[in-house]
Amino acid sequence: MITGKNYIGNKLSGKGTITHRTINPKLNIENPYEFVQATEEEVEEAVALSEKAFQEYKNYSGKKKAIFLNTIADEILALGDELIQTYTSESGLPEGRAMGERGRTMNQLRAFANLLEEGTWNNSVIDTADASREPAPKPDIRRINIPLGPVVVFAASNFPLAFSTAGGDTASALAAGCPVIMKAHSMHAGTSELVASAIIKAAEKTGMPNGIFSNITGSGRVVGAALVKHPKVKAVGFTGSISGGKALCSLAANREEPIPVFAEMGSINPVIITPEAIAARGENIASTYAGSITLGAGQFCTNPGLLLTIKSDKTDDFINDLGKKAAEIESQCMLHPNIKRDFVANGNSVSAQAGVEVVSEIIEAVAENNAPTKIVKVSGEQFLENNKLHQEVFGPFSLVVVCDSKEELIEVVNGLEGQLTGTILAEESELSTMNDVLQALQNRVGRIIFNGVPTGVEVCAAMTHGGPFPASSDSRFTAVGVNSINRWVRPFSYQDFPDSLLPDELKNSNPLQILRLVDGSLTKDKIN
Amino acid sequence: MITGKNYIGNKLSGKGTITHRTINPKLNIENPYEFVQATEEEVEEAVALSEKAFQEYKNYSGKKKAIFLNTIADEILALGDELIQTYTSESGLPEGRAMGERGRTMNQLRAFANLLEEGTWNNSVIDTADASREPAPKPDIRRINIPLGPVVVFAASNFPLAFSTAGGDTASALAAGCPVIMKAHSMHAGTSELVASAIIKAAEKTGMPNGIFSNITGSGRVVGAALVKHPKVKAVGFTGSISGGKALCSLAANREEPIPVFAEMGSINPVIITPEAIAARGENIASTYAGSITLGAGQFCTNPGLLLTIKSDKTDDFINDLGKKAAEIESQCMLHPNIKRDFVANGNSVSAQAGVEVVSEIIEAVAENNAPTKIVKVSGEQFLENNKLHQEVFGPFSLVVVCDSKEELIEVVNGLEGQLTGTILAEESELSTMNDVLQALQNRVGRIIFNGVPTGVEVCAAMTHGGPFPASSDSRFTAVGVNSINRWVRPFSYQDFPDSLLPDELKNSNPLQILRLVDGSLTKDKIN
Repeated sequence: MITGKNYIGNKLSGKGTITHRTINPKLNIENPYEFVQATEEEVEEAVALSEKAFQEYKNYSGKKKAIFLNTIADEILALGDELIQTYTSESGLPEGRAMGERGRTMNQLRAFANLLEEGTWNNSVIDTADASREPAPKPDIRRINIPLGPVVVFAASNFPLAFSTAGGDTASALAAGCPVIMKAHSMHAGTSELVASAIIKAAEKTGMPNGIFSNITGSGRVVGAALVKHPKVKAVGFTGSISGGKALCSLAANREEPIPVFAEMGSINPVIITPEAIAARGENIASTYAGSITLGAGQFCTNPGLLLTIKSDKTDDFINDLGKKAAEIESQCMLHPNIKRDFVANGNSVSAQAGVEVVSEIIEAVAENNAPTKIVKVSGEQFLENNKLHQEVFGPFSLVVVCDSKEELIEVVNGLEGQLTGTILAEESELSTMNDVLQALQNRVGRIIFNGVPTGVEVCAAMTHGGPFPASSDSRFTAVGVNSINRWVRPFSYQDFPDSLLPDELKNSNPLQILRLVDGSLTKDKIN
Repeated sequence: MITGKNYIGNKLSGKGTITHRTINPKLNIENPYEFVQATEEEVEEAVALSEKAFQEYKNYSGKKKAIFLNTIADEILALGDELIQTYTSESGLPEGRAMGERGRTMNQLRAFANLLEEGTWNNSVIDTADASREPAPKPDIRRINIPLGPVVVFAASNFPLAFSTAGGDTASALAAGCPVIMKAHSMHAGTSELVASAIIKAAEKTGMPNGIFSNITGSGRVVGAALVKHPKVKAVGFTGSISGGKALCSLAANREEPIPVFAEMGSINPVIITPEAIAARGENIASTYAGSITLGAGQFCTNPGLLLTIKSDKTDDFINDLGKKAAEIESQCMLHPNIKRDFVANGNSVSAQAGVEVVSEIIEAVAENNAPTKIVKVSGEQFLENNKLHQEVFGPFSLVVVCDSKEELIEVVNGLEGQLTGTILAEESELSTMNDVLQALQNRVGRIIFNGVPTGVEVCAAMTHGGPFPASSDSRFTAVGVNSINRWVRPFSYQDFPDSLLPDELKNSNPLQILRLVDGSLTKDKIN
């Protein structure tokens, strides 16, 4: 079924001459398919179709868009075993993870479908007229969310399904009313083509305009840059490295018409472990964190890469125990030889900094692309002096920072870049004395976890997956949960408009029976 | 009462040597006070105080912040006649406008106070735990909005009160929980100092931390740039020119930690007038628009600078009538000699373009800084060919574009830059045939008005004052109405947190009795 071509709207197209292959990291060989990078002309055609589709799609009802999203989920499931096999062969991730991630992807699509069916999400506000108001009559003003326009989505290397072709960015943009042009990740281009075929099939079955979705292939940055710079593109979603995200933000900010980029760029996810918590349950924490650090070969954006504690007589034992337990967990295959290469290089770069001691390291021969777990430690003083210790090492790696005092620990937290998450492991009894630590941590993160692990990002309305720069490019939005739809919409107001021309959400009769803020009160009532 | 100094937190400070004076444009003389530009050291101190104040203020309850905002309103009123006199002497605007704008400023502050007292605005979402969920237990996740940090606000030239020192940006940022560092507008620095004194007095009366507000003076771009580049500043609000707004956006995007800028940069506010509307009520429209174009010397961001129509046998009569009526309205004083100079130069630049005909122009001697109203016209064809005709002429100026057909009119609309507003003057009977025009206009604007004028921006929850770039730098937000608070907050999630450490908005007992989205349902119920 895989052709190696791009989807330019509903049509497979492979006019280019530049090609690449994906790699099976477990076998360390190239996969059989050859993927054809999109040409300038194909990019142009995809954007033109997307813009045309937008003019229709932006007016579709929530119910119609919901049917589309649910059908995408059905069609992804219908890809069956070919999708699972392609996923594992392009990522080295196990079959169980593939099935789980497929389920999550489908659940995300269905969650947005539910949101659209209900219709309250779009924040309808109605302020009715008052002709008798002095000194001037009050007009009738009604507000709704409308979609921004064509959105370009860049797939994540580490979630070939849930943050890729039909992942959270795509689902939220389509739900918002925006056509999507997908920049497939070159590491899992086959998975992307299969999922794209499911989206196209769903689009055709449910009567969506041609151009509602395109899937664009390319291995360098050329195609992605062309998409972000295109004047008809109105927003960008990205999940990946800080350097990649920053490059896209800069391209977008320097356009003649700058456009919003939501880039989720990574994080070292500080975890504060108090001496009291170590004293009370150090072994348990060590086991839990050995698991969290190595989960999925450490290839999660919420991987705990930085553990912070304050020196006590139990500190060394705890750190050694953590190192031992982490090293006992069998090493796992990484997503790609390049990711393995960078993991080793970045881990070595941190280990080579002044004052850093290796606590444990898997050094026996592991399969070619497996990740050798590594735990290192350093003093708070040295961490404060050296920004190179702040860098993310993507993979099963964690740096333990041992501070001399709570004051030093707070200083360390205050000096961190923005993070997706922050975690506190502490005894309930000491929390009343920790307000200063909590406050400092809150300033640097988007989500704070008590006595848990940062890995595992629940898909729910209360989730914030984002945070101060560079965790994400704009901390005012989340990439996970239904609120992520807000990245792709803008408020729009109608003043004194005839009822018949208003969208259903704003009509006097409230035909959709949604909650609306009418003259300051939330209600489903009609307007008289 | 005016000292010419900066407020660095609660303290008046004037250490610098660079000074400027404001101008009374009616008398065309300098006002008596000398304003001292803030030094680097003063800027540094203001930001340091602001950051420190943030660490306290971010945790204040809505009720406490509401008292502060209401007290600011009281203290502004208590400035009495000195404020009104200073306002008129620095802006050339009439006393009635000063009083009206003062009322609006106070109403805005009180509207945010009401919002905070109620507390539902912060979008509290609670997804409760489910320990029995398979394959993994579901954690308890709770979301709230938290403030971004210190915000720098740039005052608008054309609203010395409502979009300046205690204007919409300041009120919304303070409501959000962000301290404000005000960059006073050099044209009305005295008004700014008076209002700043009211804010400081209110802050001291209500126990706000020193640094919650500073008022920084300076006549060039040096001080503003230093503020925007400062690492402790977390967001920027701006109302002004496209060139000024773009420069700030660029500074902010190129920081090591980029920060959001909401810049409202201006607009020519297209108005579509159908031949049918002209036939049915052309004289009435001409009167209304002669008034709207000249209102406040045309110095409104929603001033109708572009009228679009389709050629009919009544077009010429209508345009001539509009020109005559506009010229009959007495010319008014502009805000500043530089604004008058730019108005004349920009108006001449548009008039000098190929195909542009002057319809009417006030040419008799008017007072030195009064604005000579000017109406010009051009064909749709020529407008499409020449982007220089799209430029905003800030003042009582309007360009009438006469299109050959509806298709050409749609092409004109599609070619426009982003706008704050779009207006349609049409007969109800023809609306069913105008969907394509409405759709095109919607793509370019933030608010659409039927059979009205764009001037007059109602302050209400349903208002959108913003629009696609360059009307504003980020169309996903509004600068007017209580939703403008969303510019200064970010979502934040607590996972499995002890109830006692949660903010009141998220506590099980719902002590604030606010509406919360609990497990998908909006409710005021407690959590068990």
